[in-house]
Amino acid sequence: MKSARASAAASVSNLGPGYDVLGLCLDGPRDEVEVSLNMSGRLRIIQIEGDGGRLPWDATQNCATVAAQAVMARFGEPQMGLDLRLKKGLPLGSGLGSSAASAVAAAVATAALIAPDTPRIDLLNACREGERLATGSPHPDNVAPSLLGGLVACVPREGEAVDIVPLVVPDGLTVVTVKPNISVSTAEARAALPRQVAMADAVSNVAEMAALVTGLATGDYNLVGRSLGDRFATPYRKGFIAGYDEVVAAAVEAGAIGAGISGSGPTLFALCSHPSSAEAVVASMVAGFAAHGLESVAHVSGVDSVGARVEVVTG
Amino acid sequence: MKSARASAAASVSNLGPGYDVLGLCLDGPRDEVEVSLNMSGRLRIIQIEGDGGRLPWDATQNCATVAAQAVMARFGEPQMGLDLRLKKGLPLGSGLGSSAASAVAAAVATAALIAPDTPRIDLLNACREGERLATGSPHPDNVAPSLLGGLVACVPREGEAVDIVPLVVPDGLTVVTVKPNISVSTAEARAALPRQVAMADAVSNVAEMAALVTGLATGDYNLVGRSLGDRFATPYRKGFIAGYDEVVAAAVEAGAIGAGISGSGPTLFALCSHPSSAEAVVASMVAGFAAHGLESVAHVSGVDSVGARVEVVTG
Repeated sequence: MKSARASAAASVSNLGPGYDVLGLCLDGPRDEVEVSLNMSGRLRIIQIEGDGGRLPWDATQNCATVAAQAVMARFGEPQMGLDLRLKKGLPLGSGLGSSAASAVAAAVATAALIAPDTPRIDLLNACREGERLATGSPHPDNVAPSLLGGLVACVPREGEAVDIVPLVVPDGLTVVTVKPNISVSTAEARAALPRQVAMADAVSNVAEMAALVTGLATGDYNLVGRSLGDRFATPYRKGFIAGYDEVVAAAVEAGAIGAGISGSGPTLFALCSHPSSAEAVVASMVAGFAAHGLESVAHVSGVDSVGARVEVVTG
Repeated sequence: MKSARASAAASVSNLGPGYDVLGLCLDGPRDEVEVSLNMSGRLRIIQIEGDGGRLPWDATQNCATVAAQAVMARFGEPQMGLDLRLKKGLPLGSGLGSSAASAVAAAVATAALIAPDTPRIDLLNACREGERLATGSPHPDNVAPSLLGGLVACVPREGEAVDIVPLVVPDGLTVVTVKPNISVSTAEARAALPRQVAMADAVSNVAEMAALVTGLATGDYNLVGRSLGDRFATPYRKGFIAGYDEVVAAAVEAGAIGAGISGSGPTLFALCSHPSSAEAVVASMVAGFAAHGLESVAHVSGVDSVGARVEVVTG
């Protein structure tokens, strides 16, 4: 029986001024999906590992199978069926693109079986169907980096179309992520956002984005550090994360370029110019949360420029 | 008697998604200011040329003298006075940064006399006082490119502070400007803008900015052309400019990368990848306005990477 295994990594979306726009692929934890092709005409989940029993087994309700189904619908034939195994490496609901990583790994594994020459970018919309299931909207800002690697800007076009624009990041850029022991649902985090923003705030984020893209492309870390401000989401979401301001300040004091909320939280990210500065930043952020009575789990990652990987194809 | 002459060029602000953020210095028409130093303790306008009698002679009400005064206040001594001559090369109220060019030329000429080693960037706030007089707010997005050259992003910081971030533009980038025979006041154009924007529109401009900066830095003209969209100002201002949509479409059809409103209008700009494509774009835009019964005046410019120039210092 023909089968394929693929993996996809955690990502930081909503980076700085890039709410709903920027996503950064980490060389951190990865989800793995293995699919076996059959001619049953249906898609089944036959194994889920690492989710603590929290993910749905109904194939219409799981991001991974929904993305696989979308690949089948576009590139497969009606009689084709799949058995899917999902191994979660990412924590759920942490703001690191967990649903996106599962969707991407499933889409890439499925394509490796039935349409192996498909350019990665052509799998984007299938992956987005997983996000539509998870959040009600086909947000590209986690699936795009998880699929394609690197830092990307997702630019909305007509209807649901998006341009994915790869951005340059400096060599050595290191990302600390710290997840405090709080649960924030994406739905709750979305509901906290205003539907309108003041023109001055809108202009501010646009300007910060110009500066951030330029700072990253030229390796000007001072400029990057000054340009991670966000007036769209952070002011409304930081209240969900006890100690937010203090932990961000602690990260910068310990040598981080800047810090903010990863995705819709509660994980915070901090950017460091070099792996060597990450240790002090981790210690400082973890201590910051501890001062607010919160345990936290930290990771240090580089930027993954490859994105999803097909691990094995057999049969 | 010690005197200095300086000149400063037209600029395109509000470029694409960069409302209140981006400004581009043209190697087009320039304003010239000549100042002579004396010890009268006061500032006088002794000549204005090329304004058709429209500019105020009261030194407290003219952008050029207000900027010169700000330079004197910061770098001069109380007993110093100036006689100022202004020669307008830019059309007034066209959306090409006319008040900014006068202010910049005056500030630079004054600094050349009294504080010649001052870094250009340190004159920015003095130049912005001219804009405060002209528009009620010290907008930096015309004075910064006119002073410093090139394409810049103006990033608002604490209070009235701004970071000026130079952006990369491709060699050969050519700017067509076409001013139809309409008058739009900056005040009227500002009043037309909403004070709030929908989150989706705010996100769209942020995303376009990421793409535009990247497209310009990498010379990807297709990306630049797709990323000049603006949902902050253009939808509310294009109604002041008869034929806007048709003239923009005509520019693109004739080979322009993209087009939009320069400043608060009524001048439109169109970007071309090379001077050779500009002629057809000019013809097409002028014909487009003519079809709406409007005469127009076109210029073809390159990007001026130098900014303001001190032309002569004597005495």
